[in-house]
Amino acid sequence: MVSTEAAVVIDSFVPSTVPASVAAAAAAVAVVVEVEAIKTTESMLTNLNQQSILDFDKGDPTMYEAYWKSIGEDFKITISASEALSYFANPKSFCWFMLPKLEQEIRNLHNVVGNAVVEGRHIVVGNGSSQLIQAALYALAEPLDPSSPISVMSAAPFYSCYPQIAHYMRSGLFKWGGDAHAYDRDDQPYIEMVNCPNNPDGELRGPVVNKANGMLVHDLAYYWPQYTAITKPVDHNIMLFTMSKCTGHAGSRIGWAIVKDSHVAKQMVKFLEISTIGVSKEAQLRAISILEMISTNSCSTNFFEFGQFVMAGRWKTLREALEGTDILQVPNFPPRHCNFKRNYIECNPAYAWMKAQEGINLEEVMKEENIRVRGGGTFGCPSNYARLSILGRDNDFDQFLKKLPSIVKRLAHSKF
Amino acid sequence: MVSTEAAVVIDSFVPSTVPASVAAAAAAVAVVVEVEAIKTTESMLTNLNQQSILDFDKGDPTMYEAYWKSIGEDFKITISASEALSYFANPKSFCWFMLPKLEQEIRNLHNVVGNAVVEGRHIVVGNGSSQLIQAALYALAEPLDPSSPISVMSAAPFYSCYPQIAHYMRSGLFKWGGDAHAYDRDDQPYIEMVNCPNNPDGELRGPVVNKANGMLVHDLAYYWPQYTAITKPVDHNIMLFTMSKCTGHAGSRIGWAIVKDSHVAKQMVKFLEISTIGVSKEAQLRAISILEMISTNSCSTNFFEFGQFVMAGRWKTLREALEGTDILQVPNFPPRHCNFKRNYIECNPAYAWMKAQEGINLEEVMKEENIRVRGGGTFGCPSNYARLSILGRDNDFDQFLKKLPSIVKRLAHSKF
Repeated sequence: MVSTEAAVVIDSFVPSTVPASVAAAAAAVAVVVEVEAIKTTESMLTNLNQQSILDFDKGDPTMYEAYWKSIGEDFKITISASEALSYFANPKSFCWFMLPKLEQEIRNLHNVVGNAVVEGRHIVVGNGSSQLIQAALYALAEPLDPSSPISVMSAAPFYSCYPQIAHYMRSGLFKWGGDAHAYDRDDQPYIEMVNCPNNPDGELRGPVVNKANGMLVHDLAYYWPQYTAITKPVDHNIMLFTMSKCTGHAGSRIGWAIVKDSHVAKQMVKFLEISTIGVSKEAQLRAISILEMISTNSCSTNFFEFGQFVMAGRWKTLREALEGTDILQVPNFPPRHCNFKRNYIECNPAYAWMKAQEGINLEEVMKEENIRVRGGGTFGCPSNYARLSILGRDNDFDQFLKKLPSIVKRLAHSKF
Repeated sequence: MVSTEAAVVIDSFVPSTVPASVAAAAAAVAVVVEVEAIKTTESMLTNLNQQSILDFDKGDPTMYEAYWKSIGEDFKITISASEALSYFANPKSFCWFMLPKLEQEIRNLHNVVGNAVVEGRHIVVGNGSSQLIQAALYALAEPLDPSSPISVMSAAPFYSCYPQIAHYMRSGLFKWGGDAHAYDRDDQPYIEMVNCPNNPDGELRGPVVNKANGMLVHDLAYYWPQYTAITKPVDHNIMLFTMSKCTGHAGSRIGWAIVKDSHVAKQMVKFLEISTIGVSKEAQLRAISILEMISTNSCSTNFFEFGQFVMAGRWKTLREALEGTDILQVPNFPPRHCNFKRNYIECNPAYAWMKAQEGINLEEVMKEENIRVRGGGTFGCPSNYARLSILGRDNDFDQFLKKLPSIVKRLAHSKF
């Protein structure tokens, strides 16, 4: 029963624009994961009964599990006890802890997807993009030897972890400077985080401050075909990517930066050296295998097609559930031409940036329904906004959709 | 030829106190690694010809490669593409990114070796002990919300990375305070790093400041039977260990803390969450396999016996090479009873803390002989001291021993 349900959920996600081949492949994926789905769903139902809480707060990309389970054992890696003992992976490279094959696979993938310029650029691997953000801030601020910390900003709604990352060490090099829209100093250096597509609202954005002393860090964690149209290979000074959101391997803690200036790249490596003496070789080895598989498209279903398919399905059903009401709103995105897909596609962000009427605390409303979301306040916005992750497991998303009508009904009858 | 040399080097390391069985096992290890040794040594000789530099600067624990190669494929791990996608490893635990089996294996190992109390203590996994030092400093300093940064100190000679770790972020929470012997404030909180056995000099030490406002972090990276006698299970507030120095898996970036106070442990996890959102699951999976193998002693040669054997051999030949001269001195350590070995053993530190006559810059002298070492200055000491790593490959150590007489001779004829 449960397995049929799981298959139906995936089936019901087929948007009209998806070719039959992808839908068929996804159905095959659904069949392959049936046994696992029974196990997973049963354990989730047990959890639900115990806790009755649906977690849409964290961007844990477990929706990709179905895909990776469907490809089976073909892309497993084996590591012996004697491999990769040394701190060093490539002593001749400035990024001495990065396996040369990982660098090559990162470059390959960007060339295949067409989302970033890598030729003549430096690659730096990190323990996820959170660490690389810190490495970038350090690399930009430290050489300036600032007498007071340099402001780090991002336009609201901004990724909720930026303030924490910029603040937690009480660094004398940089500090959190708030919403970039509010910045009005002309005389001071500053760093602007440009997140595109933006977490939480999916908007495609550029820098907003645009003053002479500005330095930019482009956080491109979501600039992949499953979330947005790939319109061009971008080419900024510092661009950050992560396995977590590209392939769903959040547990690996592998991110990378593409950096124009060699001094900045070296300074980032210096940060990573002091912070963690580099990055796990085991995680790098798995990342090599995963990225190579995606680039060479060596599975029956293309990974990005699968991701696009699932994301499109989830957004379609979410929009259907909210149709005919303005009690809860999610943003709309015009179709754009995707060079990777070679077609016009809808954008399907990793998060639904949900808006209720003013005066409503949306996080609290959801909490009362045992749904955990991330309130607007942490993104520099009012509390009638909240972010819901679309990256979780099918069953959780299905449960949420079932609850949605009663939430809308309840809000409609509330007085604010 | 080269393989015979490798075997001879290992043979020549048999100290008189080593039982025949361990010597025989080590000889077997030597045979098993012959083919790899040819490859490795040839590539090293190529490197030597190209660069002619022997690196004794870094504590890269490649000496353990011989052991791990000898055990072959029995302890390899396999990771599929669908495993460990989530950020979470154990959502119910305060250290939510740590695999429960890793925690169990860490506890098992300490119980088997008898070097630390783990019962009723909290375990926190980190990306190596460098990150855990930072996590500990953060956990101790942040809740105090200090108006000026808290001094972090260690008694000279101190681990050369402590100053960098405490300084690089120009944190408002803590700062490097220098040699703990020189600290004379009574009114301020401070943090003392206690490294035991100490890097670089191998001394067994306790705190030196001992004032009322002190907080201690015990860095016990080298408190394992291959380096020193295990005299008791130690039981301090915060104790740090790392795979790098325990098993030689520096490339994995796995360290752990044993913490008494649950608030401190939680605060350390908060740091690790913001810094890197936890620790690679792949690295944790290999660590589980390695630690389990060591604890259950499931190989013909006990890992710690092998380590003790190689280290004792290296120290024996080093002392022999320096016999009859006081031009270059290394510390002596009295034999102590080791509860793990159930016998009196010599201490064989991971580094030789070498002392030349006053006025000599030992790092420079070695550099002229194409030997890279770490000068005394980085450890808070005069430049007639230098640290040499004993943890490298056999061939490098052998090359160094061959060069030593001419260095001694040259120093004897120099005028200082």
